[in-house]
Amino acid sequence: MSDDVAAPAEFEVPEGYVALDWRRGFVHQIGPLYRRQGAGGYAMGFLVEPHHTNGMSNAHGGMLMSFADMAWGHVVSVETSSYWVTVRLTLDFLSSAHLGDWVEGESEVLSSEEGLYVVRGRIWTGERTLITGTGVFKPIQRRDPRPGEKAFQAASG
Amino acid sequence: MSDDVAAPAEFEVPEGYVALDWRRGFVHQIGPLYRRQGAGGYAMGFLVEPHHTNGMSNAHGGMLMSFADMAWGHVVSVETSSYWVTVRLTLDFLSSAHLGDWVEGESEVLSSEEGLYVVRGRIWTGERTLITGTGVFKPIQRRDPRPGEKAFQAASG
Repeated sequence: MSDDVAAPAEFEVPEGYVALDWRRGFVHQIGPLYRRQGAGGYAMGFLVEPHHTNGMSNAHGGMLMSFADMAWGHVVSVETSSYWVTVRLTLDFLSSAHLGDWVEGESEVLSSEEGLYVVRGRIWTGERTLITGTGVFKPIQRRDPRPGEKAFQAASG
Repeated sequence: MSDDVAAPAEFEVPEGYVALDWRRGFVHQIGPLYRRQGAGGYAMGFLVEPHHTNGMSNAHGGMLMSFADMAWGHVVSVETSSYWVTVRLTLDFLSSAHLGDWVEGESEVLSSEEGLYVVRGRIWTGERTLITGTGVFKPIQRRDPRPGEKAFQAASG
């Protein structure tokens, strides 16, 4: 086991994904994480490595939840170019991810009334759904639009 | 920021708590975590360190969720001396924990019908509640009782 969170050298990042550049804090600690964006929408992904596993060599539930929080809440960044916080998460665990699996996640907005984003999310590997659930996220502060966000595309388009 | 998950030298572990001896996998990666057990019940705890934080120097939501999963599900170990999996978690985020805060968590069993443990849980720091929620956990395999678990106490008492 190692604290080195660099991806294994032989790992080929799936097409369309780029690594997130977090160099500190919790997201670095549980990384590397990847993001895909483009005409087909966006998603997040990560490869299950030894530092993500439980005693059964599956992705730890906490890792999948942390990933779900980020993958599902990201839609708020895309829609509003804001920092956001998580208000509520409900997660149903359906299946396990194993060491070496490529895990992906995304969400769709159900409602954005009253400044609260309610989303339905899914986490999967290959054809297998790992988690479904609902998230409620609250934008707290606008920031400059970043590539892949609607405000960025509108300004540059 | 460092990948070194050793506790700061000046940190004095709160009375009654001992560090969990996880040397690999996700629990090691996000550690160190601590557990208290005894006549007054049990709880889990951790000190918010730089590798637990988000960009605002608060504990990342994913860290708090991972901690809640373990702190709330542990009651299944105490009651049944089994390995267990998480079936469903609902988490309401009420407040943030800051760098240097000592965070604690515990749960109480609401129901254990049909082999599913439903618990109500809480995560807090000092007088401030950070998360409340509900967990559903399923014991999957009996193992030898460990200190602090009911079967261990019954055998040794």
